[in-house]
Amino acid sequence: MTDQTTNPPRHVFIVSDGTAITAEALAHSILAQFPDLRYHQTRMPFVTTVDKVQEVARQIAEEEKRDGQRPIIFTTFVDPQIMRAFNEYVSGHVIDLFRKFVGPLETELGMKSAHSVGATHRIRDDEKYNRRIAAIDYTLQHDDGQTNRGLDEADVILVGVSRSGKTPTSLFLAMQFGIKVANYPLIPEDFDRGELPEALRPLRHKLFGLSIKPERLSEIRNERRPGSRYASMANCTSEIEAAENLMRREGVRWLNSTTKSIEEISATIISELGLDKRRVE
Amino acid sequence: MTDQTTNPPRHVFIVSDGTAITAEALAHSILAQFPDLRYHQTRMPFVTTVDKVQEVARQIAEEEKRDGQRPIIFTTFVDPQIMRAFNEYVSGHVIDLFRKFVGPLETELGMKSAHSVGATHRIRDDEKYNRRIAAIDYTLQHDDGQTNRGLDEADVILVGVSRSGKTPTSLFLAMQFGIKVANYPLIPEDFDRGELPEALRPLRHKLFGLSIKPERLSEIRNERRPGSRYASMANCTSEIEAAENLMRREGVRWLNSTTKSIEEISATIISELGLDKRRVE
Repeated sequence: MTDQTTNPPRHVFIVSDGTAITAEALAHSILAQFPDLRYHQTRMPFVTTVDKVQEVARQIAEEEKRDGQRPIIFTTFVDPQIMRAFNEYVSGHVIDLFRKFVGPLETELGMKSAHSVGATHRIRDDEKYNRRIAAIDYTLQHDDGQTNRGLDEADVILVGVSRSGKTPTSLFLAMQFGIKVANYPLIPEDFDRGELPEALRPLRHKLFGLSIKPERLSEIRNERRPGSRYASMANCTSEIEAAENLMRREGVRWLNSTTKSIEEISATIISELGLDKRRVE
Repeated sequence: MTDQTTNPPRHVFIVSDGTAITAEALAHSILAQFPDLRYHQTRMPFVTTVDKVQEVARQIAEEEKRDGQRPIIFTTFVDPQIMRAFNEYVSGHVIDLFRKFVGPLETELGMKSAHSVGATHRIRDDEKYNRRIAAIDYTLQHDDGQTNRGLDEADVILVGVSRSGKTPTSLFLAMQFGIKVANYPLIPEDFDRGELPEALRPLRHKLFGLSIKPERLSEIRNERRPGSRYASMANCTSEIEAAENLMRREGVRWLNSTTKSIEEISATIISELGLDKRRVE
């Protein structure tokens, strides 16, 4: 094994006849298994014609020539004609994220794929779209305890101190899973009273808490209000302690978000609350 | 080929030692190539111990017994020990989204993967996290023309009539790509004046428009305000016509969002505005 850390970064291309968003996510997961690898990345979505394939081939060949290393290319092509053209014109280490799996699935399912019969069509799933939009609308309206109206319609209500990650998590759950999320800050008044905000008490079974390390909270709050009492370590430590005590006493499940990505926090909440019911697609 | 449409739905399991979110996205893309396939889906994230593998194996076997069809199982395991346990205990049509690609990549890169050396560690990328959070904050503050302060910091400013899809697209761009998005409604006053809102004029190069079919807009607005003039076909048709004329006159690029997913709209905007600059990871 050569010491790659001294080599120039590799070029990674992510090419698709669709958005390339899924291809990018999987490429990142695969490349993350090579923690020492440094790479430049170029996304190339909507490569839907042979002309565009040739243009892509030209760009990739140019990069290869420039840095003298074989590019790594992740692809997801639904249109078999485009896939064939790509394989004809492009050289590199190609990782085709569809082809390896679709053939065996045809056999397993006893079905031809749209891919192999050449009928590539994409129809927007309006029901799923509407569910997402409704969830996003709901979540925006119920961000940061803005209103108690319709709070009982929430699939989940996130609680936690200010800047513990409630809003991004709420929006991700709505966007990705069509889940209606309300979020509600826990504030010093709640800690003084020693009880959950009144509007939340009948909805205890829907609550999920986010906590965070005081050091990280102070860092985040300092970005917003540098040098404020609000952002001070002393205040962050005492708010978090009070919030955790309150959640413990009230039987609210929570997790510590400090080292977790928005995706990990969201997937944990879904698991813990059993929100991921089996559905027919 | 048998006629699968009369068969009961298949069971699809998506199993991961991580969030299973990427695995789910790729599974959906692959299964979408079988438009006649009906399936039930179960996500199983955070399968991080051999005990959990055994529990998953039990559930999958039970489902298989119940409906007499082999389950389709998509997996992404980073931890090789968990992957081995899974292969030992679980039977079905397993589609391992990592393994096929990691081995050949090791050869190509001349590097061992963390996978094969057993060093599975996941560290949150704080810089990326902070960029996402900052983008979401910015985007929420600049939703629906709320404020003109800091508008010049936007990476892109979406314009369009009310309910043309600006808010979900803005949030997706911020969440997924860390892009700062402002969005600004085009309203009857703008059409009467025949000019862009004043705050937007110096920022014309950052503008991108969303349009939509009048039928669809009327449907969406009717969900919000049933039977209103705002939602009527006549009003939707005239607003859209005026908005498209205005954008054409002002040289604002736009797309019609009617049949597109939020992902497709977002990826198109990134391409069109060249926001996806090559970056070293």
